[in-house]
Amino acid sequence: MLQIDVPTLLIDQSKVIANIERMVAKANQNGVQLRPHFKTHQSAEIGGWFRQRGVKTITVSSLKMAQYFAQNGWDDITLAFLVNPRQMEAIDQLAAKVNLGLLVDSQSTAVSLAQNLKNHVNVWIKVDAGYGRTGILWTEQENIYATAQAIVHAPNLTLKGLLTHAGNSYATPGVSAIQAIYDQTVTRLNAVRTFLAERGTQTDALGTVETAVSIGDTPGCSVVENFEGVDEIRPGNFVFYDLVQQQLGACSFDNIAVGVACPVVAKDAARQRIILYGGAVHLSKDVMMVDGGMCYGRVAHLNDKGWTNPFTNSMLISLSQEHGIVTAEDELFDAVNVGDLLLVLPVHSCLTVDLYSAYTTFTGKQIPKMRTN
Amino acid sequence: MLQIDVPTLLIDQSKVIANIERMVAKANQNGVQLRPHFKTHQSAEIGGWFRQRGVKTITVSSLKMAQYFAQNGWDDITLAFLVNPRQMEAIDQLAAKVNLGLLVDSQSTAVSLAQNLKNHVNVWIKVDAGYGRTGILWTEQENIYATAQAIVHAPNLTLKGLLTHAGNSYATPGVSAIQAIYDQTVTRLNAVRTFLAERGTQTDALGTVETAVSIGDTPGCSVVENFEGVDEIRPGNFVFYDLVQQQLGACSFDNIAVGVACPVVAKDAARQRIILYGGAVHLSKDVMMVDGGMCYGRVAHLNDKGWTNPFTNSMLISLSQEHGIVTAEDELFDAVNVGDLLLVLPVHSCLTVDLYSAYTTFTGKQIPKMRTN
Repeated sequence: MLQIDVPTLLIDQSKVIANIERMVAKANQNGVQLRPHFKTHQSAEIGGWFRQRGVKTITVSSLKMAQYFAQNGWDDITLAFLVNPRQMEAIDQLAAKVNLGLLVDSQSTAVSLAQNLKNHVNVWIKVDAGYGRTGILWTEQENIYATAQAIVHAPNLTLKGLLTHAGNSYATPGVSAIQAIYDQTVTRLNAVRTFLAERGTQTDALGTVETAVSIGDTPGCSVVENFEGVDEIRPGNFVFYDLVQQQLGACSFDNIAVGVACPVVAKDAARQRIILYGGAVHLSKDVMMVDGGMCYGRVAHLNDKGWTNPFTNSMLISLSQEHGIVTAEDELFDAVNVGDLLLVLPVHSCLTVDLYSAYTTFTGKQIPKMRTN
Repeated sequence: MLQIDVPTLLIDQSKVIANIERMVAKANQNGVQLRPHFKTHQSAEIGGWFRQRGVKTITVSSLKMAQYFAQNGWDDITLAFLVNPRQMEAIDQLAAKVNLGLLVDSQSTAVSLAQNLKNHVNVWIKVDAGYGRTGILWTEQENIYATAQAIVHAPNLTLKGLLTHAGNSYATPGVSAIQAIYDQTVTRLNAVRTFLAERGTQTDALGTVETAVSIGDTPGCSVVENFEGVDEIRPGNFVFYDLVQQQLGACSFDNIAVGVACPVVAKDAARQRIILYGGAVHLSKDVMMVDGGMCYGRVAHLNDKGWTNPFTNSMLISLSQEHGIVTAEDELFDAVNVGDLLLVLPVHSCLTVDLYSAYTTFTGKQIPKMRTN
């Protein structure tokens, strides 16, 4: 058994690799480009597990993350975040070194890139296909066209296509709901693509440009089997999955590949609660609703090689800075003593992982990762 | 103006010092020991600002934090977290170096400390005075007595008294509600103290022991003016305050001493929203309800020396990993352009600060802090 004294981020390497291999196989079967989002793991070593399985193109969510992976040998990177004008010079420097993809959401941003970058970049038009966070609304086709034109007319920019993140796939649980959002997203992006092709022919400028369609959410990419109409997929969370994905129906408990080992520091017999050394600074404060109550995580037993499936009638119901409170079913409460460890499965693995500088494997190895701040 | 390109944790040093001086003055006037909780700032340099104002005793929430501050010259430290049996050896090593205070919530933990520690420690009995998180319920007076006896009978343990964290002061906004929780807490702890004194006289063991009363929440310590019946206060959050404290009535917007500078990366005119480069990994996912909606922060303008009070009709309503979405009133929306910076006041400063390795001052200086993980 590992020597663990404080809340510790554990990784089940075999589950991670199975998650990677499943997505690689699906992308290959469909003939779509897999450009996994590395914001979830933020680790050069885990990136290597993708590379060993043929992945050569990646997505990141910050310039710092792009720089980190560029330093670790990745040379085809999409920065899937709206261009931050304050980082233009550093973006330009990175563009000199790698095949860099950027997102724009307006004609003016495209013009700004054309004017301010000395080096070549690939450009994706960020389209809002229904999620409502960022991007040009898919119905604003003339706006998208004008943006596309600004890109194709700039010698240092190459228009790659239309990119969206269908974050609305997280809104409704169930495979059919996820499939419906996916279908809607792909239909809308292809309507824009068709419009651009027809409009482009009329004006010459876009006539010879093929616009790809890139989508990105883990629920959609996990559930959908047929990617017709899509050229590239950019899921990220699937590398680890989490309780949100399990609740949505995008994975099973058994696919969740990270958790936090937490020491038990008290038992409250009157309320049948277990108090963990493990709080918001170890798990993040992200929360989901389960049976009408707040859920900050589920707990499982640890063993030498991994963890069990979680207890389904026990729940992490509250997090302070360093404490977590678990309402425990009989079997769990009776089995656990102060000084034991429990494994907490995260609500949102991206945010939990972001709190740590390294993963611990079941062989006791440390896998370092970059830090956001 | 500071050169800021990415989400950056800013500190207004003059506000921090004013917050410290106000609490130091209040403790001195009342003749109570101030043992501030350093889990909020986690910085040796900021600790020095307390020391310069006469503070010599501190509270921390983890052994790592205790070790960090011990290395930085603090020698009277209460580890205000239930004893983690897995760290007993390291606790013992630290107890050899500093005047260490520990919390116990049962007779068995007291016995375990007596048996496993070679070095002397001070011990506080953690009492649940109504919050319901950890500690022996204040009505279980015989249980508290038995725990006290186990402590006083151990040659390596000194019973300091009764300690609570009245986290229930966060439940209801308003000065009178906070005062009512405070009064209830102090009354209950003094009832236990009286019981122990009388019970102790009967059995000899506790007859000569004076049990102190230590309380700790920032709302109570901010609002209450008269600390009669209390020997020690351990507030932490007051050093920075935040939007939760402002909503409770424990501080004003003007007292909030940290914020995150975030670049504006998009404007959504249709919905009058501003999209920030600044998400859950920069602010934490902690949330509060304002006017029936979720609030992840409020925004203010930055200037050379600090920030304005926040816009009261604008709100950070959503956080992704790296994005924040602000619903903006006219004055804000019209004043802000893509590429500008906005200052986000945090919902819960302890969790926001925990995400960073350093603070940036308005003179451009970096103030390092420890990291939790």
